[in-house]
Amino acid sequence: MAYQYWSYETLRRFCMEAFQKFGFTEAEANIIQDVLLTSDLFGIESHGMQRMVRYHKCIEKGMIKIDAQPEVVFDTPISAVIDAHDAMGQLVSYRAMELAIEKAKKSGVGIVSVRNSNHYGIAGYYAKMACKEGLMGFSCTNSEAIMVPTFGRMAMLGSNPIACAFPAEPYDFLFDASTTVVTRGKLEMYNKMEKPLPEGWALDKDGHPSSDAPDVLANIVAKNGGGIMPLGGSTEQLGSHKGYGYGMLCEIFASILSMGATSNHCMVGGKGNICHGFMAINPAYFGNPEDIKAHFSTFLQELRDAPKADGQEKIYTHGEKEIAAIVDRHANGIPVNDNTMVEVLDLCEYLGMDFGSYFGDYRPPVKKEVFKGNY
Amino acid sequence: MAYQYWSYETLRRFCMEAFQKFGFTEAEANIIQDVLLTSDLFGIESHGMQRMVRYHKCIEKGMIKIDAQPEVVFDTPISAVIDAHDAMGQLVSYRAMELAIEKAKKSGVGIVSVRNSNHYGIAGYYAKMACKEGLMGFSCTNSEAIMVPTFGRMAMLGSNPIACAFPAEPYDFLFDASTTVVTRGKLEMYNKMEKPLPEGWALDKDGHPSSDAPDVLANIVAKNGGGIMPLGGSTEQLGSHKGYGYGMLCEIFASILSMGATSNHCMVGGKGNICHGFMAINPAYFGNPEDIKAHFSTFLQELRDAPKADGQEKIYTHGEKEIAAIVDRHANGIPVNDNTMVEVLDLCEYLGMDFGSYFGDYRPPVKKEVFKGNY
Repeated sequence: MAYQYWSYETLRRFCMEAFQKFGFTEAEANIIQDVLLTSDLFGIESHGMQRMVRYHKCIEKGMIKIDAQPEVVFDTPISAVIDAHDAMGQLVSYRAMELAIEKAKKSGVGIVSVRNSNHYGIAGYYAKMACKEGLMGFSCTNSEAIMVPTFGRMAMLGSNPIACAFPAEPYDFLFDASTTVVTRGKLEMYNKMEKPLPEGWALDKDGHPSSDAPDVLANIVAKNGGGIMPLGGSTEQLGSHKGYGYGMLCEIFASILSMGATSNHCMVGGKGNICHGFMAINPAYFGNPEDIKAHFSTFLQELRDAPKADGQEKIYTHGEKEIAAIVDRHANGIPVNDNTMVEVLDLCEYLGMDFGSYFGDYRPPVKKEVFKGNY
Repeated sequence: MAYQYWSYETLRRFCMEAFQKFGFTEAEANIIQDVLLTSDLFGIESHGMQRMVRYHKCIEKGMIKIDAQPEVVFDTPISAVIDAHDAMGQLVSYRAMELAIEKAKKSGVGIVSVRNSNHYGIAGYYAKMACKEGLMGFSCTNSEAIMVPTFGRMAMLGSNPIACAFPAEPYDFLFDASTTVVTRGKLEMYNKMEKPLPEGWALDKDGHPSSDAPDVLANIVAKNGGGIMPLGGSTEQLGSHKGYGYGMLCEIFASILSMGATSNHCMVGGKGNICHGFMAINPAYFGNPEDIKAHFSTFLQELRDAPKADGQEKIYTHGEKEIAAIVDRHANGIPVNDNTMVEVLDLCEYLGMDFGSYFGDYRPPVKKEVFKGNY
């Protein structure tokens, strides 16, 4: 399986047209493409272009409603609950984080919980929005059940990522990670690459370890059992109950406070039902924000300067790899694998777009028969 | 190594007298013993009686100041920063969580960050305080550096536990876990039991895996290198960067917002310098608290009812094991190992207390020479 490298501008132009063809306004398309391509720029291939097929299929099936009008159903100076009414996840999430930021600026903190939404892309995007305003940002989402709780054999929680961003120099701290050992997107990538999964990632339908990506993905969709292990594996010795616990923390902010669907009730009956949680905290409510930022920056530098393990040259702080990836992607292009390009070609046919006007003479070599998930 | 079983009442009476002999008031001793023995009642041996020696030595050395007067140095309706002035960690933390609870009741959320403190016991104790008031509780602390960041060989973060509690029926959700794969307390227990450490827990001073508890503990104290792996191990494949990231989240709430010492500067130069973070969130700022509690309770029951893995009979929700442990400890006594009883005997000699008036004719069989940490 080969990769094609496309310029950011090419992919941006493609996404802008595609989302407007679906019926979104230019401003909406701009938010959606920015979430999507920020992921590719960050080097998180799993949540970038390779997810176009998911949005394509969810819009086609009516799970994502183009004209949905998200509604603030509960509102206080420090909190809000939004019913997304099946909106595109990125759009309601962008608005929810803006609201959290506004509250944090006025009241010190803003917590917004969202129900009845759809996949929102990378959690870190929204955490970073707060960071750009000098605030601590926090974002989490549930998703279709894929995490098997400790001692279970059925997936009951989503990959339930938690992201946290905090202003720092020379670059912001940005931690964004699923509470499963890996994301579903990683399994989808291994599936597309037709490679066996590493040990310690996934369980088959009976709860035994599995390296078979298509089988694990198919079982998740059919709700046959199996799924991805929590961070910490499937036994308590290495902390399985901890990954499972962080997954629960995510549900509390996303599905519990909003009275929305928990992950085991997401993506059921043609509804996404996905829930998100957002929080912004204003450092000015704890002291001088510049002093706090400098204090944190010093610690981050101490971490980067700490002695390295044998054979390692670098200790990263969270957000550092993303900065390097952005520079690389702008210089060398964004890698998109051929199986994803098959989906892009399909999408062009569906929307009546001219594939060649973006990607020239390139055509995906063979339409691979790989498991496509529940798009 | 054998265990002795003592009634809760015996240990409570012992701790009350011991802490009052140190110079704490009856009310203060009551808070300290409650944090300590709640850990033993929860079945978390590592943070109960076996930690008496640490408090003993830290008070003796003047690191913990009996007469410290913690000071609120920054205060808003939703936040506060407290300088503990080297107070006993449990006392300033109890007060800080009370303050967070008060703010959450009045303003929806309360976030309190504490600097210049000492070890505060189990994180979950404080999270649970909020829960008892119908609020979501969150608590975290840093500690002497023991976690080696991904690709490093020096410990730079503490075990940095994060606890979260949320009201539910038939029992509250209570998640409390270090962001390392295991706690330092677990290493101390293996040290006392003279057992090799399981694989995937610790690194030697050069950053290689180690099963030698006394060596790892000694290296941590001497700051020679090595320590405990983050949750997720020491490579990215199983998510090392995630445990490291949660550890950073803990630093943000504890040491960064308070402008206190980060873990790599804790327990240095005769000062504890430990920092804590507390948060209480009022569910009434998101909807009807009873509906939210019922909604969460339903999800917890669905988790417990979910199909079990081959060979497993039970899926636990967080806090459930603690409930069972409390019942067991009240019925069968609290287990305390002989090496800890050696320390209790030492403490009685130091404080001029009559060991026999608590523990009858029992005497610890042999004074074991095990590594005692940096008490």
